Amino acid sequence: MEIVYISKTVYFNAAHRLHSEKLSDVENKRIFGKCNNLNGHGHNYRLDVTLRGPVDPITGMVGNLSEIKAIVEKQICERFDHKNLNLDTAEFANLVPTAENIVVTCWHLLKNTVLSSLLYKLVLHETSTNTVEYRGE
Amino acid sequence: MEIVYISKTVYFNAAHRLHSEKLSDVENKRIFGKCNNLNGHGHNYRLDVTLRGPVDPITGMVGNLSEIKAIVEKQICERFDHKNLNLDTAEFANLVPTAENIVVTCWHLLKNTVLSSLLYKLVLHETSTNTVEYRGE
Amino acid sequence: MEIVYISKTVYFNAAHRLHSEKLSDVENKRIFGKCNNLNGHGHNYRLDVTLRGPVDPITGMVGNLSEIKAIVEKQICERFDHKNLNLDTAEFANLVPTAENIVVTCWHLLKNTVLSSLLYKLVLHETSTNTVEYRGE
Amino acid sequence: MEIVYISKTVYFNAAHRLHSEKLSDVENKRIFGKCNNLNGHGHNYRLDVTLRGPVDPITGMVGNLSEIKAIVEKQICERFDHKNLNLDTAEFANLVPTAENIVVTCWHLLKNTVLSSLLYKLVLHETSTNTVEYRGE
Amino acid sequence: MEIVYISKTVYFNAAHRLHSEKLSDVENKRIFGKCNNLNGHGHNYRLDVTLRGPVDPITGMVGNLSEIKAIVEKQICERFDHKNLNLDTAEFANLVPTAENIVVTCWHLLKNTVLSSLLYKLVLHETSTNTVEYRGE
Amino acid sequence: MEIVYISKTVYFNAAHRLHSEKLSDVENKRIFGKCNNLNGHGHNYRLDVTLRGPVDPITGMVGNLSEIKAIVEKQICERFDHKNLNLDTAEFANLVPTAENIVVTCWHLLKNTVLSSLLYKLVLHETSTNTVEYRGE
Repeated sequence: MEIVYISKTVYFNAAHRLHSEKLSDVENKRIFGKCNNLNGHGHNYRLDVTLRGPVDPITGMVGNLSEIKAIVEKQICERFDHKNLNLDTAEFANLVPTAENIVVTCWHLLKNTVLSSLLYKLVLHETSTNTVEYRGE
Repeated sequence: MEIVYISKTVYFNAAHRLHSEKLSDVENKRIFGKCNNLNGHGHNYRLDVTLRGPVDPITGMVGNLSEIKAIVEKQICERFDHKNLNLDTAEFANLVPTAENIVVTCWHLLKNTVLSSLLYKLVLHETSTNTVEYRGE
Repeated sequence: MEIVYISKTVYFNAAHRLHSEKLSDVENKRIFGKCNNLNGHGHNYRLDVTLRGPVDPITGMVGNLSEIKAIVEKQICERFDHKNLNLDTAEFANLVPTAENIVVTCWHLLKNTVLSSLLYKLVLHETSTNTVEYRGE
Repeated sequence: MEIVYISKTVYFNAAHRLHSEKLSDVENKRIFGKCNNLNGHGHNYRLDVTLRGPVDPITGMVGNLSEIKAIVEKQICERFDHKNLNLDTAEFANLVPTAENIVVTCWHLLKNTVLSSLLYKLVLHETSTNTVEYRGE
Repeated sequence: MEIVYISKTVYFNAAHRLHSEKLSDVENKRIFGKCNNLNGHGHNYRLDVTLRGPVDPITGMVGNLSEIKAIVEKQICERFDHKNLNLDTAEFANLVPTAENIVVTCWHLLKNTVLSSLLYKLVLHETSTNTVEYRGE
Repeated sequence: MEIVYISKTVYFNAAHRLHSEKLSDVENKRIFGKCNNLNGHGHNYRLDVTLRGPVDPITGMVGNLSEIKAIVEKQICERFDHKNLNLDTAEFANLVPTAENIVVTCWHLLKNTVLSSLLYKLVLHETSTNTVEYRGE
């Protein structure tokens, strides 16, 4: 059976502030710059979820994209969409919501679902020129 | 002289909360839905600024896009980028930061500059599927 | 009150065949070319719905985009998405489903809703290089 | 010599129906949902063809993109563009035209050309949020 | 008959230098900045050609997009694609090839074709953030 | 520590001519076609720079994207933006400025910076349908 990679794209719009309690205010400002703004700022996040698996010879599919979309929206979008990541989510109460930490967090949230064995790669677009990718390494 | 429309696109990333002091909590929730989230959410805003004017026969330009960009970035981006519109800006301290109010506010900010006489249209993209436009009407 | 234009974008994926019963087979082939293929072909259609109206001074909105989206999806997407326009819809049983006829048909479908008085413009993207627009003229 | 990956993007617009003769009507409906619509629906397909090879020290090219484009258009676009994949093509007469099966089929069609030894990856975009990729595994 | 606007998008890649013989070198440098670079620079130009006209009740079309595309490619793309606008074209031998002058020149080139009576608007994208539009005013 | 890939996108607009002194005029014309035009043509180049590294547990970042952007703009954009690659740059004085050679050259320029140990991949988009990628192989 052929191995194919299938990707579903979802979106969520959220506020965040880059600030670490382990750093001084001066260091926070130096490292995070304008992203350290006290009251936060925000982004339209785009997440591409890629699964890798064999093509079922009967259905011609690696997985059902409608079901995959429903799982991703439940695990990721319902949790983060129209939220302040720092103040409204348990995941980022004590973790700086950088794009890197968001994409790794999304990975762990999806590893706890039936998609786990097929999960191959996540790509998170924070802006049109900033992107991060995690493959579980 | 030919009349040409020239447009410059800029970006700013901001947090906001849709909430009116003139409405009850129940009404705020009903009207603004998830956009009423207490701690806000955010967007990558894209603003297309369109000027209308005659083409200078010597330079072949309606206006200098480098100068136009500098003015728009100073008036709009420096003011709103990486900010919480409700908490960090005078413009939205008492005005609900809907896309409609943001685009009209940007218009007035640009009318106070040397671009005033050429200003024709502003298009603000809040997400890839939500857009507003203001022409000074 | 300021007059603002607000746009919501929706998508539908459909098959169609360009063929007129009023034309001979030879003429159909000459005029519509490969779009006349007997068994049809298809597109991802993108529709931008633009409303024009005053900004409500309390809500800061011309209209509620969630409600607008729901109306457009019910009137347009549920009717045309994942359909064969020629064979599955009453609208194109006797009307060639060109992009021009689709956009005019969408206009009339939306004129029969509460959006009627605000409806300003529809833009339909058939491919990344083919677009049509209707303003009710 | 450096190894570089070069990609050419082509488009084709086609109708298809997801339906397997090996499944009951009930199962077809359950698995394929609205994609099982009897008369089909359609998409604007975008295909990114990636070749991998050494950069020729004289020409500075891995391959001639004009020639590559011509081969891909002849093998893929002429075959599938403005067609009903189920009814008009030999490839999908007995194979469900899912995105996975389409991308694998395109791979085999290109393996039968002079591009074979350089062929590295195919990415097929079915919609703006659904993508599949095949690397010959 | 309904009036519909139809648009076709074409591309051409060209080099240019912004420099006026009517200005001193100092003025050229001040006004055009890095665009005044002696040996030129270049862009991927995207041109959206919009026609306005009644929908033919038989064909359902304002005009045949295949024929429109052929005319635009012949008049615009063959003339400017893979050219140095200043050195290789008669149009810009004595006219500064600013985006404004290019879009007006394209307008006049298309007014000399059978598209003349339907020609409504040209939009030229010089970069992803710089756009000009001409409507024959 | 998790390994994450981070990407920053930059742009530069340049003219170039594909022509090799090691080839006859006839061969140059045959191989490079319209890209061999004597006076050159041009493109809006988009470069995606991807770094690979561990996420710092304090900052939550692989690297500071503001600093990365500054380095890439200094090394790549200041060197190539608004230039004629053949006539204005030392890098392509004796090297055909194909997309392949440009992306490999950019790689070497970035290997000479503090980004060297993290540099993973460069993707250069020459047009919307032509892309090359280099991973240091």
